Amino acid sequence: MSNEFKPVAGNGLLDRRLFLKSGLTFSAATLVAAAFPVAAGGVDKKTAAINPSSPPWMHEPGAPFSIYGAPSQYEDAVVRFPTANRDVPGNGVSWTPLHKLEGMITPSGLHFERHHNGVPQIDPAQHRLLIHGLVNNPSFFTIENLLRYPLTSRICFVECGGNSNAGWNKAPAKAEAGYFHGLVSCSEWTGVPLAIILKECGVTKKAKWLIAEGADAFAMNISVPLEKAMDDTILALYQNGERIRPENGYPLRLIVPGWEGVLHVKWLRRLKLTDQPIMARNETSKYTELQPSGKARMFTFIMEAKSLITSPSANMVLKQPGLYQITGLAWSGRGKIKKVEVSADGGKTWAEAALQEPVLDKCFTRFRIPWQWDGKPAMLKSRCTDETGYVQPQRDKLIAERGRHGFFHYNAIVTWQVDEHGLVSHIYDSKDADQKTEGTGAINIDAGWE
Amino acid sequence: MSNEFKPVAGNGLLDRRLFLKSGLTFSAATLVAAAFPVAAGGVDKKTAAINPSSPPWMHEPGAPFSIYGAPSQYEDAVVRFPTANRDVPGNGVSWTPLHKLEGMITPSGLHFERHHNGVPQIDPAQHRLLIHGLVNNPSFFTIENLLRYPLTSRICFVECGGNSNAGWNKAPAKAEAGYFHGLVSCSEWTGVPLAIILKECGVTKKAKWLIAEGADAFAMNISVPLEKAMDDTILALYQNGERIRPENGYPLRLIVPGWEGVLHVKWLRRLKLTDQPIMARNETSKYTELQPSGKARMFTFIMEAKSLITSPSANMVLKQPGLYQITGLAWSGRGKIKKVEVSADGGKTWAEAALQEPVLDKCFTRFRIPWQWDGKPAMLKSRCTDETGYVQPQRDKLIAERGRHGFFHYNAIVTWQVDEHGLVSHIYDSKDADQKTEGTGAINIDAGWE
Repeated sequence: MSNEFKPVAGNGLLDRRLFLKSGLTFSAATLVAAAFPVAAGGVDKKTAAINPSSPPWMHEPGAPFSIYGAPSQYEDAVVRFPTANRDVPGNGVSWTPLHKLEGMITPSGLHFERHHNGVPQIDPAQHRLLIHGLVNNPSFFTIENLLRYPLTSRICFVECGGNSNAGWNKAPAKAEAGYFHGLVSCSEWTGVPLAIILKECGVTKKAKWLIAEGADAFAMNISVPLEKAMDDTILALYQNGERIRPENGYPLRLIVPGWEGVLHVKWLRRLKLTDQPIMARNETSKYTELQPSGKARMFTFIMEAKSLITSPSANMVLKQPGLYQITGLAWSGRGKIKKVEVSADGGKTWAEAALQEPVLDKCFTRFRIPWQWDGKPAMLKSRCTDETGYVQPQRDKLIAERGRHGFFHYNAIVTWQVDEHGLVSHIYDSKDADQKTEGTGAINIDAGWE
Repeated sequence: MSNEFKPVAGNGLLDRRLFLKSGLTFSAATLVAAAFPVAAGGVDKKTAAINPSSPPWMHEPGAPFSIYGAPSQYEDAVVRFPTANRDVPGNGVSWTPLHKLEGMITPSGLHFERHHNGVPQIDPAQHRLLIHGLVNNPSFFTIENLLRYPLTSRICFVECGGNSNAGWNKAPAKAEAGYFHGLVSCSEWTGVPLAIILKECGVTKKAKWLIAEGADAFAMNISVPLEKAMDDTILALYQNGERIRPENGYPLRLIVPGWEGVLHVKWLRRLKLTDQPIMARNETSKYTELQPSGKARMFTFIMEAKSLITSPSANMVLKQPGLYQITGLAWSGRGKIKKVEVSADGGKTWAEAALQEPVLDKCFTRFRIPWQWDGKPAMLKSRCTDETGYVQPQRDKLIAERGRHGFFHYNAIVTWQVDEHGLVSHIYDSKDADQKTEGTGAINIDAGWE
């Protein structure tokens, strides 16, 4: 093993800057000389020998131009995974396949969904936003009106408060990483800063909350503190450059950066300024959590820091020992990610991963670190720290703090086990609690999505 | 006019920080009280009065979950515009509708296209990248091999060297901004740094160039200097989080940040290391420009700084005088955009626009500035400066330098005229040259795309 392969933490984790150094050979390629041995002759002769025929698509004209593109037919398994409530059509979620994606942008077609009564097909010419209640100038806004206002853009994540809820189960979930943790996605959102619109409506001094309501058949509503609305909340019209897709709120969505997804009201039609929260279904019977003390947490707006190794991850197979790249995502509702550490020995030792620039506020941050797998069983974990100093908790600590009656805000460290055949599975280890508990590990597709 | 509306440059350009200040009323909304006057009663009564019925989509269940999303049916005019060569099927371009987009990310479905023989439908399991020529270890790479290597991500633009070529015409083009300047798009690209792969193949000291070849039926090829290949060139596998779309090079594309699009070889199948360029069709008969001196420019790799107001822009109509946001894009192949200035009086005076953070290297930068249109004719221009100090040229200066036989690398300042009816058109003013010349202004759909 060359000096460059000297581990920086247990079980083969290597320096995150390794690949920037020269002289490294990774050796995943096939040498031409090995594949097509020729007795003599220069490189060009070899090339001629190895490449007697070009592939079929070089022998016929390709497909015509398209006015709107789509992924390759060979990528038809890269899709969202719906887990809808069978008894309530139009109610459920669909998961982003985080384990099949790279970078920090989630393609809009794969952004997670959460609906209560399906996806309304809204004619933007008929859509109105009403702002009323404790304002001096109750007003209507058409989409055309809103597009006259100054716009702002930001790349940020949206995460459902119920993301990763199978983490509370006593048996470790067996789903792929994205179909367990993929109720989080990251887009460039562009819209009007809500503060501009609220100032124009003349918010009165009594106003403390906004009741946001969607134009779906569920008339989904929720209370948003005025302070957040005046801070960085956006009336979003565009997602990843184009107008928002229907399932993500076309033509208008509230974006409340870093806060739980339920606040990011889709198909936004109404903001009523009030002096108190409305105590809606989704802030009383849902999105509350009974604590060990017997009291319930409510209005748990901020999504705490979380990280997840997306590759290797559950149900992937490492075909042989050798050098791999461990990669994943980290994010925090409190600001920027400061550090992501990775362990390959179940948390005994940790090495710092490289963070892909730009590292942005309340945004996915891609992390990567090289790993030399020796072919023996290993346990991979990632742990992030955000700029406030908050450290992603171990599962046992989270359960001790929050108890057993939670469904929301699960952000514990995830453990992936690599067995001697290279198969990756989700497990609970000794720091995770429940590791002796039996169970099917199936994700209950109905649970909670009511 | 309040103090906040005090212009910072001629003809109504306002402070770029205007909308951050409090107390501004933009007044594009409809007051509820004006729309539905009621003699008495509180705000809630008004609301009840104005909102007797909810929209139809609140009265029926919405559409089901989808495994891969698509834009709203109401956005079906937001499409690429193909201008293909009628005599050569599969040869041509399709333009990104920049005038209908916002933010800095171009959705992958709308990324511009340039093809010579259509879009090959490549089976990634059969695709190989061959690296040979002046290397010690000629090698094959499968897509699976490449995915083992460390990946990197960057958000950057790709611009066709022939973008905006209608700017060389003597009559100003009449197309919409994107259908004239939209052979440029911006994505998050993720792939293997080419330097890692080349080092592993053992580049010999004689090697100075790479000949890159695509797996389309045109077998498109081009020479890339080794120095750039070892710098920031990427073997890209992912675009905006998911695998690259077929028309953008699936399964493998060369990304050469900041350099002309023709180098970003799609469907990449071969890199041959050589001591000199191959003198391919696209670096001899095309992508060269006869200069006033009688000599031709060749290997004009870098896309110089350029900016464009995307709204208001050609063929849009401002319905009434009032406050508008001028917005557009700026980018430079040499690094970051440092400054974008906007003029509303045809270049007599300029005001600095706000740049949307993050401002990234070789990347679209969105700029915005508020403008008070007084209803009289106006001439809008934008001018960018990059971090090297390079300033986007006036059209007359560009033509004086480069002559009349060019087709590529047109990056002059664009002039949009707003007439007294609010109609926006592309014109040449006294700084643009040719302003007295007659012509149809039609974009020749065949020109150059051979």
